[in-house]
Amino acid sequence: MSDTKKVVLAYSGGLDTSVILKWLQDEYACEVVTFTADLGQGEEVEPAREKAKSLGIKEIYIDDLREEFVRDYVFPMFRANAIYEGEYLLGTSIARPLIAKRLIQIANETGADAVSHGATGKGNDQVRFELGAYALRPDIKIIAPWREWDLNSRQKLLAYAEKHGIPVEMKKGKASPYSMDANLLHISYEGGILEDPWSEPEDDMWRWSVSPEAAPDQATYIELTYVKGDIVAIDGVPRSPAEVLTQLNKVGGDNGIGRLDIVENRYVGMKSRGCYETPGGTIMLRAHRAIESLTLDREVAHLKDELMPRYATLIYNGYWWSPERELLQTMIDQSQLSVNGKVKLKLYKGNVDVVGRMSDTDSLFDEAIATFEDDEGAYNQKDAEGFIKLNALRMRIAAKRLK
Amino acid sequence: MSDTKKVVLAYSGGLDTSVILKWLQDEYACEVVTFTADLGQGEEVEPAREKAKSLGIKEIYIDDLREEFVRDYVFPMFRANAIYEGEYLLGTSIARPLIAKRLIQIANETGADAVSHGATGKGNDQVRFELGAYALRPDIKIIAPWREWDLNSRQKLLAYAEKHGIPVEMKKGKASPYSMDANLLHISYEGGILEDPWSEPEDDMWRWSVSPEAAPDQATYIELTYVKGDIVAIDGVPRSPAEVLTQLNKVGGDNGIGRLDIVENRYVGMKSRGCYETPGGTIMLRAHRAIESLTLDREVAHLKDELMPRYATLIYNGYWWSPERELLQTMIDQSQLSVNGKVKLKLYKGNVDVVGRMSDTDSLFDEAIATFEDDEGAYNQKDAEGFIKLNALRMRIAAKRLK
Amino acid sequence: MSDTKKVVLAYSGGLDTSVILKWLQDEYACEVVTFTADLGQGEEVEPAREKAKSLGIKEIYIDDLREEFVRDYVFPMFRANAIYEGEYLLGTSIARPLIAKRLIQIANETGADAVSHGATGKGNDQVRFELGAYALRPDIKIIAPWREWDLNSRQKLLAYAEKHGIPVEMKKGKASPYSMDANLLHISYEGGILEDPWSEPEDDMWRWSVSPEAAPDQATYIELTYVKGDIVAIDGVPRSPAEVLTQLNKVGGDNGIGRLDIVENRYVGMKSRGCYETPGGTIMLRAHRAIESLTLDREVAHLKDELMPRYATLIYNGYWWSPERELLQTMIDQSQLSVNGKVKLKLYKGNVDVVGRMSDTDSLFDEAIATFEDDEGAYNQKDAEGFIKLNALRMRIAAKRLK
Amino acid sequence: MSDTKKVVLAYSGGLDTSVILKWLQDEYACEVVTFTADLGQGEEVEPAREKAKSLGIKEIYIDDLREEFVRDYVFPMFRANAIYEGEYLLGTSIARPLIAKRLIQIANETGADAVSHGATGKGNDQVRFELGAYALRPDIKIIAPWREWDLNSRQKLLAYAEKHGIPVEMKKGKASPYSMDANLLHISYEGGILEDPWSEPEDDMWRWSVSPEAAPDQATYIELTYVKGDIVAIDGVPRSPAEVLTQLNKVGGDNGIGRLDIVENRYVGMKSRGCYETPGGTIMLRAHRAIESLTLDREVAHLKDELMPRYATLIYNGYWWSPERELLQTMIDQSQLSVNGKVKLKLYKGNVDVVGRMSDTDSLFDEAIATFEDDEGAYNQKDAEGFIKLNALRMRIAAKRLK
Repeated sequence: MSDTKKVVLAYSGGLDTSVILKWLQDEYACEVVTFTADLGQGEEVEPAREKAKSLGIKEIYIDDLREEFVRDYVFPMFRANAIYEGEYLLGTSIARPLIAKRLIQIANETGADAVSHGATGKGNDQVRFELGAYALRPDIKIIAPWREWDLNSRQKLLAYAEKHGIPVEMKKGKASPYSMDANLLHISYEGGILEDPWSEPEDDMWRWSVSPEAAPDQATYIELTYVKGDIVAIDGVPRSPAEVLTQLNKVGGDNGIGRLDIVENRYVGMKSRGCYETPGGTIMLRAHRAIESLTLDREVAHLKDELMPRYATLIYNGYWWSPERELLQTMIDQSQLSVNGKVKLKLYKGNVDVVGRMSDTDSLFDEAIATFEDDEGAYNQKDAEGFIKLNALRMRIAAKRLK
Repeated sequence: MSDTKKVVLAYSGGLDTSVILKWLQDEYACEVVTFTADLGQGEEVEPAREKAKSLGIKEIYIDDLREEFVRDYVFPMFRANAIYEGEYLLGTSIARPLIAKRLIQIANETGADAVSHGATGKGNDQVRFELGAYALRPDIKIIAPWREWDLNSRQKLLAYAEKHGIPVEMKKGKASPYSMDANLLHISYEGGILEDPWSEPEDDMWRWSVSPEAAPDQATYIELTYVKGDIVAIDGVPRSPAEVLTQLNKVGGDNGIGRLDIVENRYVGMKSRGCYETPGGTIMLRAHRAIESLTLDREVAHLKDELMPRYATLIYNGYWWSPERELLQTMIDQSQLSVNGKVKLKLYKGNVDVVGRMSDTDSLFDEAIATFEDDEGAYNQKDAEGFIKLNALRMRIAAKRLK
Repeated sequence: MSDTKKVVLAYSGGLDTSVILKWLQDEYACEVVTFTADLGQGEEVEPAREKAKSLGIKEIYIDDLREEFVRDYVFPMFRANAIYEGEYLLGTSIARPLIAKRLIQIANETGADAVSHGATGKGNDQVRFELGAYALRPDIKIIAPWREWDLNSRQKLLAYAEKHGIPVEMKKGKASPYSMDANLLHISYEGGILEDPWSEPEDDMWRWSVSPEAAPDQATYIELTYVKGDIVAIDGVPRSPAEVLTQLNKVGGDNGIGRLDIVENRYVGMKSRGCYETPGGTIMLRAHRAIESLTLDREVAHLKDELMPRYATLIYNGYWWSPERELLQTMIDQSQLSVNGKVKLKLYKGNVDVVGRMSDTDSLFDEAIATFEDDEGAYNQKDAEGFIKLNALRMRIAAKRLK
Repeated sequence: MSDTKKVVLAYSGGLDTSVILKWLQDEYACEVVTFTADLGQGEEVEPAREKAKSLGIKEIYIDDLREEFVRDYVFPMFRANAIYEGEYLLGTSIARPLIAKRLIQIANETGADAVSHGATGKGNDQVRFELGAYALRPDIKIIAPWREWDLNSRQKLLAYAEKHGIPVEMKKGKASPYSMDANLLHISYEGGILEDPWSEPEDDMWRWSVSPEAAPDQATYIELTYVKGDIVAIDGVPRSPAEVLTQLNKVGGDNGIGRLDIVENRYVGMKSRGCYETPGGTIMLRAHRAIESLTLDREVAHLKDELMPRYATLIYNGYWWSPERELLQTMIDQSQLSVNGKVKLKLYKGNVDVVGRMSDTDSLFDEAIATFEDDEGAYNQKDAEGFIKLNALRMRIAAKRLK
C-alpha cells in the first residue's frame, strides 16, 4: 500500500474527513493535499484551512465554485427538466462531478497520484466521485477509507480522533440525528427515523425552508427571464447563475417551497429514504417547463420528455463525465436556442403556480389559429377529417379483418 | 348525403348538441338516437331525456357510467403515472374512449349506421371520438357538424335554435366566458382571456376547488390503501372506484389542491392554453408514485418512466383503442401485481405531501441493508470497488487513448 | 382555383408529369416552371428540356444534384445506421426532402406561389414532398393532381395526352409492369404481381444488380476509409460522396448485393409490398457498423441504436425538415467525431462480410485488456465479483422477500 | 473458506472444469455435485459421467435440455427479433439463464449451499450465471475459481491436472487456437488471431457451416409455419422446437448461412472480437420479421423495434431472470397472438431471401386498398390533404414566426 506518494483529499474540515486525513498520513504514509470547495452549502470554508494546517498539510486548496457549479452543472441539467424517479431534483448528484473534476485538476497540478473522499461504500456518492475521477484521469488511484477501514461507527471515529490529537469541535446545540449534504441546489437528510418509510419527519428537521403553515399569508409574484433555457434575470434585474439560485432559494424557502420526502433507488442496488429541500430548484423546474411550453416544438418537447428519465438516471448514477451524457447534452442544449422569454410565477405556502408566459421572439403560440372565436380561415376545420381518417386506417383494416 | 338512415348522437342536452340534433334531422333527413352519459360531470343527465323527447327522439339512452369510467379508464391510466407534457393529467382525454365505445355499442343495438358528436374541428376531442369509433366499427359513418356547417358563432347557433323552436334554457347567473368540460376526473377551461398565455385567470373561474388561500388552516391527513396499483380504501374504509375519486375530489378541492394552468400541444398541430382542476387525480398521482417507490423494482420503475410519455401521448391523441396502447397496458398492469400497501398523505392549502408509505407483503425496502448504522454484514462495502471499476472501464480505456 | 399564378412542377419528362404540366396550364390557367433533377436515377435529364420547351415552358430548371444528395442527405442518414422496420434502407424517402427544398428555392427565385408533384394520394411521397415544402415555406400552395383529377388510369392518361398533343415516347422494349423509382441510393419496384405478398418476383424485374447466382465465383475485397462517419476513400483512393456511392453501387451490383423484398407500413396507414435494390447502401450500412464497433463508446452506440428506429421513421414519414429530425441529427453527427478508420470487406454473391476494421487514432479496442492470454494485471478479475454482487442486489432483496 | 459444504458445479467433462472439480474438493474441502447439460452443443454428454465418477463424485446430473432450451429461451427471444448491437444473435447469452436455473434447482434438490462455474473474470458469462443464480436463490454462495486461483494459463492447468491425476484426454487432431462455446443456437470463437480486429479468420475456423463458396449452386426453398410467433412446422411437417432449430441449422449450414464476425461491447467494459455461426437463427430472424410484416400493426411493430435493443442488452448482460426482462416479455408475447401464417424462403450461398409471406387468419395487408390499380373507392385520396396539412401545421407556424 505504500506506493502512493501524494493524495488529494476532498476535505470539509469536519470530523470525518479530518480523521481520514490523519488516517491517510498514517496508513499510506503519503503526503496529503486538501481541497475544500464552497458550493453554497452555507458553511464557512476558510476554517478548513487552519484545521488542515494544524494537521500538517502544506498544499491547501480552498475554492469558491458557486458560479461554476450553477453555470456549468445546475443550469445545463435544468435545461433537460431532469427529475429522477418522478420526484428527485438531483441536488446531491449534480455537485459530485464538479468535485471530481477539481480533485483531478489539483492532482495534476500538485503531482499527486491518488485522490480520496469521505463517501461510504453504500451510497451513490462514491460512484459519482470515482466514475468522474477515472473518466478524467484513467490511471488515478482512488482511496475510499470507508470501504477499507474498520472505523465503522461514530464512537470509533471519536476514539481515533482523540488518540491522534484531531480537534473535535462540537457544533453548537444538539447534533443532528440525520446525515446531511448541502450545496446551492439543495440540502438532503437521510438516516435516523427516516429509515422507517412510514415515519413522518419532525418539522424541525427542515433547515432551508419554513413550513407552508409558517409561510406568509400573502402570495409573492416573481418574473423570470430566460435566454437559451437559462434564467438571466429576476423581476427584470440581471443576475449571474449563482445569484439566480441564491435568490430563488431565499424566496422559495420563505414561501415554504421545495420540501420533498421520497424513497429512491440507489445505483448500488438498495432503496433508501431521503428528504430534500430544493426551494430554488423547485421553482426553476416549473418555470422552465412553462417557457418551453410556449417556445419548443411539440415533437422536440416530447423527444426531450422521453429521454429525460435516462438523462436523469445518468446524472444520478454518476455518469456526468460519460460520452453518453455529453451526447444527450449536445442535443438538449441545441433544443434551447429558442427557449427565450419570460415566466410569471405566484409563490404561496408551498405552491409554485405559473400564471403567465410570453416570448416576443420565439413563441409558437398562434392566437389566430388557437382561438375559439372565428379564425377567419387561419385553420380549415375540414382538414381534420382526412387527418383522422388516415390515422385510423390501420385500425379500420385490422377491425375489418376480425369481422 | 342522404344515405344515412340512423345516427347516434352524443347528446348533453345543452344548446350546441340540441342544435346538432335538429340539424341532423334536417340535413341528413335521418332518425337520431341520443346518448347522454353521467361521467360525474356534476350536472343532472335526466333533463336531457325530456329535451330529446321534445325534439321528437324515440330512442334515448341515458347511462350512469361513473363506476365503469373510473374502474376501466381512470385507474388503468393512473397505474402508468401518466402525465402529458410533464403537467397535464389527461382528464378530458380519458373520458372520450368510453363515450366512443358506448356510441358504437348503441349504434349496433339500434341498427344505426352513423354516429355524431359536438366536438369542433380544431380540437383533440374529435380525434379521440372518431379514432375510437373507427377502431371499434370500421365501417361507421361519422358526422361532425362543426366541420360541416357554417354555424360558426354563438349568434348563429342561437338564431338557428330560435328559428327551429329549440328551447334555449339560459343557465342561472352570468354565462361563463370559458369553454368547459367536466367529468369525475377533472374540469377544464379554455378560451376567453386564457387565449393570452400571459394573462392570469380570475379566481372566480375555478369551480371545483377553493383557492389555497381559502383552504383550511389545518392540514388534513388521509391514508390510501392500494391493491395491484389501485386504491381500494380511504382511511381504512373500502371504496368503489367512483367513490374513491369522488371522495378524493372532495377532500382535495376543500384543501385547494389540483389547479393547473398550462400551454399544451394539441394533436392537430397548434398550441393552446388550458386550465384544469383535478383535485383527486393530483392526490392519486402523488400517492401512486409513493406506493410504487416501495414496491416496484428499480429497473421496472425506470422502464415505466421511460415509456410513460409515449403512453400519455397515446391517450392524449385519442389512441386508447389502439393495439399499441393495449400492449403497453398489458405491461403496465403486469407491473402492478406487487403494488400493494398503504400511503399516508398530508393535504394542506394546495400541497399534497407524502408522509409515509408501507407494504406488509411487497416492500422492497430492506432496512437492514439501507441503514446508516452498523449493518452486521448485510452489505459488503468492498463490493462497491469492483462495481465502480468495471463500470468505469470503458471510460478509462477511452481516456487512455487520448493521452 | 384560379388565384394561382405560377407553379413549380417536379418534372421528370415522362408521360405522367407531362400530362400534369398540361393539366396545370389548363385547369389552373397558370404559368408552369419545370424542375428536373439528376439524383443519379440513371436516365438522362436533358431530354426533359426539349419536352418542356415544346409544351411552352419558359423557365426550365435542370440540376445535377448528385453530390449534394449524397453529401447532405444520404451520408448523414447512414451515420445513424438508419433502417426502417428492420429492413428498408430508405432509398426513396431520403431523396424527397432535397426535391422539396429545390422546389421551394425555385419558387422563391421565380416568384411562384405554388408547387406541384406527380405523387399519388396513396403513397408516402406526397407526404414527404409536402411536409418539406410547408416547413420551408409555410404559405406555399401545393397542387397534387392525383388527388384532384379523375385521370386515375393509364388509359385516361394516354387519352388526355393524345387529346392535348403531348408526345408519348414509348420506351424501347416491353413496358415494365412495376411502378419504379430510382436515385443514386436505390431503385424500387411496387405494383404488378408484387401486390400479392406470396408471389416471388421474376428475376428480370431487378435492374441494378445481377442475381447472386450470376455473380462472379471469386470474391471481391474492398477497403473503405472513414472520416467522421463518412466514407472518403475506397481502396485508398479519395472519392467524393457521389463517387463513393456510384462505385459501391457498381461493385455491389456486380456481386449480387442489395436486393430486398419486404412488406412495409406506409405512413398513410396501409401495408404495401416493395422490392428494392440498394447495392452501395447495403455495403455502407454494414461497413459503418463495423467502424463504429471499434470507435464508438458502448453506451453511445446503444443510445444510437435505441433512437435509430425513431430517426428512420421520421425520414420514412417525411419529417426530414422537422426540428426533431434536426435535433437527432445534431446528436448523431456529434457522435461521429471519433468514427475514423478503415474497414475491409469481402463481397461475394450477395454477401457483404466484414473481415477487418482498424483505427489508428480512435480505436477503443484494448488488446491488452481483452486478451485471453495473461494480461499482466491490466484487468483485475476480482473486480467482477463486486460488480456482479451489486448489480444483483435488488434482485436478491426481492427474492428474499418472497421466501 | 471452509464453511461451504456442498457445491454444484457446471461440469462439461473437459480439462478446465475437471481441474475446477478437483480444486473445489481440495480448496473448499466440500462435496461436489456435477451438472452436465446437453444444450445441443454437438458433443456427447455421457462421457462426463464416467469422468465425474472417476473423480469421486457421487451426485451426477446429466440432462438433455434441448427442447426446454429452444422452447422457453430461444423462441421467446426470437419473438422480439433480438439482436445485440445490430449484429449479434445472442447465442451464448441465451443459454446461460437455463444453466443458472438448473444449477439452483439441483442445489435445492441436493442440499447444496454453493454453485460453481468455469467462466473467467473477464467475460460476460460469469455475470449471466451469477445474476441468474442470485435472482433465483439470493443466499447462494457462488465460487468462480478463475477469479480466485492463480492457474491463469494452460500450462498451469495441465501441471495441476497431472499433479492431481486428472485424466487429460487430448482431442483428436490439432487443438483449436480459439476459445469456443456451442449450443443449439450457435457456436462462437474468440481469442487467437481474432484478438487483432484487422485479421480475417482462416476458413478452417468455421465448424458448423460450409463457406458460401462451397455451398450448392442450386438454391434451396423452405416454407416455415408460424403460430403465435413461433415456428411449428417446416415445409408443412410439424416439428418440435428443438427439431425446428436442428433442421434449420442443417439446411442453413449446408447453404453457407449464418457466419458473423464482429467487435462487440462486453458488459464488464471492454470491447472484444467474436466470430459466430448461427445458421438456423439467421434464418429465423429473417423469417420472423417477414411474418410480422404482414400480421403486426404498424405501431406495435415500431414499439417492438424501439424496445428491442434494450431487451437484447438485458439478455446479453445476463438479466434474463430480472423483473424488467419478464415485463418486456409479457408485452412481446402478447404482441405475438396474431403472428400466424407462413413464410417462404430461398436459401442460397449465404443468402436468406424472403420470397413470400401469407396469413389466412391475421394478414393486415389489404390488397383492395394497397393496389396501384383503381381501388373503387376503398381509399379516398383526398383524405391525404388534410392528413398532411395538420401534420405540417406545427412546422408552418414555426416557419411563419421566422419570417
